Amino acid sequence: MTLDEVVASIRPADAGAMRAAMGRQQRLTKPPGSLGRLEEISIQLAGIFGTERPIARDTTLIVAAADHGVVAQGVTGYPQAVTAQMALNFLAGGAAISVMARTRGANLVIVDAGVATPLPPHPDLRVVSAGRGTRDMTQGPAMTREQAEACILAGVDIALDAAETGAHIIATGDMGIGNTTAASAITAALTGNPPGLTTGRGTGRSDPELQHKIACVEQSLDVNQPDANDGIDVLRTVGGFEIGVLAGVVLGGALAGRAVVLDGFVSGAAGLIACSLCPTVLDFLIAGHRSAEPGHRIALNHLGLQPLLDLEMRLGEGTGALLATGLVEVAAACLSDMATFDEAGVSDREPAHPAEPSA
Amino acid sequence: MTLDEVVASIRPADAGAMRAAMGRQQRLTKPPGSLGRLEEISIQLAGIFGTERPIARDTTLIVAAADHGVVAQGVTGYPQAVTAQMALNFLAGGAAISVMARTRGANLVIVDAGVATPLPPHPDLRVVSAGRGTRDMTQGPAMTREQAEACILAGVDIALDAAETGAHIIATGDMGIGNTTAASAITAALTGNPPGLTTGRGTGRSDPELQHKIACVEQSLDVNQPDANDGIDVLRTVGGFEIGVLAGVVLGGALAGRAVVLDGFVSGAAGLIACSLCPTVLDFLIAGHRSAEPGHRIALNHLGLQPLLDLEMRLGEGTGALLATGLVEVAAACLSDMATFDEAGVSDREPAHPAEPSA
Repeated sequence: MTLDEVVASIRPADAGAMRAAMGRQQRLTKPPGSLGRLEEISIQLAGIFGTERPIARDTTLIVAAADHGVVAQGVTGYPQAVTAQMALNFLAGGAAISVMARTRGANLVIVDAGVATPLPPHPDLRVVSAGRGTRDMTQGPAMTREQAEACILAGVDIALDAAETGAHIIATGDMGIGNTTAASAITAALTGNPPGLTTGRGTGRSDPELQHKIACVEQSLDVNQPDANDGIDVLRTVGGFEIGVLAGVVLGGALAGRAVVLDGFVSGAAGLIACSLCPTVLDFLIAGHRSAEPGHRIALNHLGLQPLLDLEMRLGEGTGALLATGLVEVAAACLSDMATFDEAGVSDREPAHPAEPSA
Repeated sequence: MTLDEVVASIRPADAGAMRAAMGRQQRLTKPPGSLGRLEEISIQLAGIFGTERPIARDTTLIVAAADHGVVAQGVTGYPQAVTAQMALNFLAGGAAISVMARTRGANLVIVDAGVATPLPPHPDLRVVSAGRGTRDMTQGPAMTREQAEACILAGVDIALDAAETGAHIIATGDMGIGNTTAASAITAALTGNPPGLTTGRGTGRSDPELQHKIACVEQSLDVNQPDANDGIDVLRTVGGFEIGVLAGVVLGGALAGRAVVLDGFVSGAAGLIACSLCPTVLDFLIAGHRSAEPGHRIALNHLGLQPLLDLEMRLGEGTGALLATGLVEVAAACLSDMATFDEAGVSDREPAHPAEPSA
């Protein structure tokens, strides 16, 4: 399948199932609207799965890792070797996302999307590497257009495989030393906001380090002049291999008709690229959390997504997304499994409220 | 055990374990602070369980149900019979909290704390009823001081039993037609805010209905003049049997050294009463969510608690608390089970940041 074919094959969510789910929510044994955002999510899930009683139980989290040439500019406090070391930590079960996936019973897929250091083979590691790290985007394009398209298509395949093996929910995660710098540039390019607003402290930059990081993002945009109307060009010029894979995961999740739960800032940048290629993916997207990175708020506003969680987290790896999948699972279960007023023999409210539908 | 003995037996959280947990958080394989509020919660859990590697896996949710005499004033849109009907719905597995408890694998204990209609026996139903509903608090005290103390002590026992049977986390929930009116009066009495600020729409009051509800709360405070320095007097005059039981659950949870996760507005009122009797319980309290009821924000501010979730929910039953227990479980697991930089062979940040401790 070419990328154009993928985009052309993505169908919108089922509006009829969403209407049926809205009606069902009014008949369930609770005051109308009292489950708040869980009701909104449940109706979205009805649309995604094409039924008024959706099941969203099994989660696969896809964590894509890659390295970034821009680290040569000194934009981050950790050495580049940490990307590979953390990928090994994911596989060994010691990272935050490993612990969360075990606790939640989620399936974890680690993707080498372009880590600089070769990783030893592992049954849970999928290698789709388009290169051993991007080039320094302050000096020219981070990758070629062929690499950008290959990353995205690899992500599509990974998401289709996750759906094939039973995932109702596909969650995104990232690892890559330097990747908040790329995410800042992507967010600036695709939302039209200046780098001073889209760039944050990442893993912990000081004030002068933050100013330097902003200058690097500005330079990458000046040097490359990414085409804001072409998500692939933005990925090519100022993106990252893992961000391309995650943009593909979003497209593939939508193509497979699954709920796609986005993690924080880097996943948000991937979501911006996917939406620029195919706005219909928005029907399938759920913002897991709001990261403490300031650019993430800008990306979510641009996408029109309201995050489920706001816990001042800024780790990436899919940690915010995975926490949110627990809420998504409950949202579907309440819509599908709660009793109606009739079924439970519970009296509905007294008929003095013409504005509210009665059961 | 008398109530005075319970209060005198509650010990503060373990400050040494909290310091050790803070140190451990700095050595785990992630940038310091990047798990945000989860790190704060994990340190609190270390203090509660007295170890730098706490386990908080098993949850028991205690839902207390009771009726309220103030419904005679027309403060709610649902008939009083709904309290008993919903208690049966909880037991039959059809309510929101039933579905959530199944989804989350939590243990559910339903307490008849004073439902007007007798409920048939059921293995999951615990009857500690102090009476078949309170008296109308706009006309005089809702209950006697003996009833108030009996409710609280019953709640202590239920929490101790939950701890005894393995719960690491005790979550609170409520059901009672009319109980947001009582919670509004309690919140006004114990925080010193006027009923116009502490009273909300409950299950869906219109503007004139809300004004009437506020007037009823004002009248209950005028008639009874609750003693703001005596939580038992506030419970006696403008409280509810289920609210007394939940205040006891908070005290009992703290006495047993367990994490107590509060649900929304009605549980918050119970938390206010428990804290007025024994401020040390705050060491054990976690605010599960912020309810859409305006008085809940006031109660949380008064307690100094920041909610984990804000999903515009206003159902009660423990639904917000139960969702939050998933986050609490993950917070403990990350602190206890993540690898340190040394264990994982991951490089810590470069030593150019004297403000940040290094591993």
